[in-house]
Amino acid sequence: MPIDIMTRDITITQVRITPIAFRDGPLLNAAGIHEPWALRAIVELETSDGRVGISETYGDEPMLRVLEQAKSLVIGLSPFDLNRMEERVRGTIKATPGAVEFELAPGSHAAKNAPKVISTLEVAMLDLQGQIVGAPIVDLLGGKVRDAVPYSAYLFFKYAEHIDKPYAPDAWGEGLSPEQIVAQARRMIELYGFQSIKLKGGVFEPAHEIACMRALHQAFPGVPLRLDPNANWTLETSIAAAPELDELLEYYEDPCPSLEGMAELAKHTRLPLATNMVITTMEDFRRGAEMGSVKVLLSDHHYWGGLRATQTLARMCKLWDLGMSMHSNSHLGISLMAMTHVAASIPNLTYACDTHYPWQEEEVIKGGRVTFDNGSVRVPTTPGLGVELDRERLAELHAQYLSCGVRNRDDLSQMRKYEPGFTGKNPRF
Amino acid sequence: MPIDIMTRDITITQVRITPIAFRDGPLLNAAGIHEPWALRAIVELETSDGRVGISETYGDEPMLRVLEQAKSLVIGLSPFDLNRMEERVRGTIKATPGAVEFELAPGSHAAKNAPKVISTLEVAMLDLQGQIVGAPIVDLLGGKVRDAVPYSAYLFFKYAEHIDKPYAPDAWGEGLSPEQIVAQARRMIELYGFQSIKLKGGVFEPAHEIACMRALHQAFPGVPLRLDPNANWTLETSIAAAPELDELLEYYEDPCPSLEGMAELAKHTRLPLATNMVITTMEDFRRGAEMGSVKVLLSDHHYWGGLRATQTLARMCKLWDLGMSMHSNSHLGISLMAMTHVAASIPNLTYACDTHYPWQEEEVIKGGRVTFDNGSVRVPTTPGLGVELDRERLAELHAQYLSCGVRNRDDLSQMRKYEPGFTGKNPRF
Repeated sequence: MPIDIMTRDITITQVRITPIAFRDGPLLNAAGIHEPWALRAIVELETSDGRVGISETYGDEPMLRVLEQAKSLVIGLSPFDLNRMEERVRGTIKATPGAVEFELAPGSHAAKNAPKVISTLEVAMLDLQGQIVGAPIVDLLGGKVRDAVPYSAYLFFKYAEHIDKPYAPDAWGEGLSPEQIVAQARRMIELYGFQSIKLKGGVFEPAHEIACMRALHQAFPGVPLRLDPNANWTLETSIAAAPELDELLEYYEDPCPSLEGMAELAKHTRLPLATNMVITTMEDFRRGAEMGSVKVLLSDHHYWGGLRATQTLARMCKLWDLGMSMHSNSHLGISLMAMTHVAASIPNLTYACDTHYPWQEEEVIKGGRVTFDNGSVRVPTTPGLGVELDRERLAELHAQYLSCGVRNRDDLSQMRKYEPGFTGKNPRF
Repeated sequence: MPIDIMTRDITITQVRITPIAFRDGPLLNAAGIHEPWALRAIVELETSDGRVGISETYGDEPMLRVLEQAKSLVIGLSPFDLNRMEERVRGTIKATPGAVEFELAPGSHAAKNAPKVISTLEVAMLDLQGQIVGAPIVDLLGGKVRDAVPYSAYLFFKYAEHIDKPYAPDAWGEGLSPEQIVAQARRMIELYGFQSIKLKGGVFEPAHEIACMRALHQAFPGVPLRLDPNANWTLETSIAAAPELDELLEYYEDPCPSLEGMAELAKHTRLPLATNMVITTMEDFRRGAEMGSVKVLLSDHHYWGGLRATQTLARMCKLWDLGMSMHSNSHLGISLMAMTHVAASIPNLTYACDTHYPWQEEEVIKGGRVTFDNGSVRVPTTPGLGVELDRERLAELHAQYLSCGVRNRDDLSQMRKYEPGFTGKNPRF
């Protein structure tokens, strides 16, 4: 049983950052519509003994620049040096002024550069630790409290096809009417087994979105439902909609902008308010928790500073009586596995997690797409993340990145191809 | 390099709890005086593959009872199942009504039964994890940010000898006058190399204790000083003493009782207020942090819920702009090593930690007493805690426990042997 080298002797010798692009559906949101290509970056840390630890994060240009800047900070560290890595990143990586900010994706904020980089490196270092010691990442986070992590069916209003038709339409068809949204939910539940449902709103008149929620409620009685207008409703609209949603939702996610807006709204509804927009940093937590109006926090290890920071956040949520759920952006299986490991380690992460995974068709890991069982992903029991890079697929997705032309997510400009007069005004309703 | 069994296959098969007693000096404090024997419990977790993980904690009878109750909760778990262990303990171990409470030692509060048990088991489980994977505990906590952990010279007012003379007097002599306190500091610094000094106060008239601090300041110019009256001064006395201490102290520790008292005092002094008495649980933290009057928190893994909980606390301290130091009770080398591992992992634990270690002469670990270098303990680089039980010494210290007659710390009754009229009134000055 004794291992034959001291784990401390292994050091990180190389960092590879590979931007990739994969097909993404014409999904509507408050900012506009998804482009045909979603971007991610795959980060590999190679060690002196030839291991490779992997991680998946944002792939926009400002993020690629800070990742490039961070490379030298991990070279020479042991994969166990998470605290030193974090210190170095905090000391070096600062907010990039002038970076493109996309308000609906907290991960794109330059102010989060340090936690985003820490998270990226931490996941790959934990993957290495797990490989070295023969334990899944969840065991390095104190072990699992559940064997599988439940995710929710994440519905979107959508068109049948991208306006620029860069490839054949997806299998989901149009999703605009209540009937189409119910059909989308039905298909997603048939394929994945999800046991709760979220609709990304903030796209159409609130009355239409409420009608969709009512249709979902009728079609799936007893299934927990969530509506997320992405802060695209005014406070007044959010207050007016609340009584109609009272009987329908398990939580009311980010209907209106700002902590102050949410605090005022909280006085007018018995629904728990959830957010991944008004509390997105540890500093926000302090103010938000003290105000006490938000009741459910959507964590996301990619921008909260990693898996261990997410565990800290969970302990803070418990202490300040906040429920805990999980946010997602378009992602592939490496992120899904990291989300699964950390969620499995957190007793009070009791809401099914968000995931965009059903909207992707491609993969970058060996063995292809991750499978879901009754809406849940089984927690890996093999060392590290439990998934490995498929280098052929990585090369293909990187080639797609090179050829697709997208370098920064821009849902607004994409929407103007459909509606030239689209303002992107927020809140719009 | 691959290890030959999956770490998950190793389970905990046995729990041994051994109460021990060791000689302790006639140290004065707000509650009275230390008895001739200090108690601890040594906990051993044995695994299916024959390893032993160790931990050191409180040895009073109520603690031994809850430890006994906790035994069955870890049997069958993997040493990596920290989160499940914690869930089980929280679900089972409750506050024991009627337990002896000793106000000056937060660890004796029955309300902290669950975090105390979690901490005890966690340290032994991390010791096992480290042994299994070949890494020091600090590496399982994200790695060290410093190679050695600085401790402070912890001075006490003391008599030359215990009134009951159970054994030969210690080598420290009497410590009552400013000159004797300076001599005590000089001896302790010569032996250990400490670079900051703390005096346990709340024993004599504040004017006398301030005179001692002034004498220390003159004898050790530039050395950071702390005075801890253990909440034995009234708010009025604490306010009146503040201007005299302003130039002398790096922080003013628990002069008066209650968060409210400390909040009022904070308005009257520029000294940072420190505590291990008014914020001693995560719940206290929430209220205390929001009030903002305490500026330095003394952590203690033994009652805050373990090494990982101490790391969480550290992140919270950073977020709420609190400095971080560390509290201690009479302890031996196993606790000292656990304190050293966790302190080495926390970037913002920037104050030298308290330790009673110089007041003990005995040890329970192989190789005898831990050595200090310039007041610091080097962070172990060998697997696990980095120290092992000396079974002969354990048997001797257990025999002392059986024969000494002390079962619960009672500084008040002990003091009445010296001064029959001693009231123990708090605050006394």
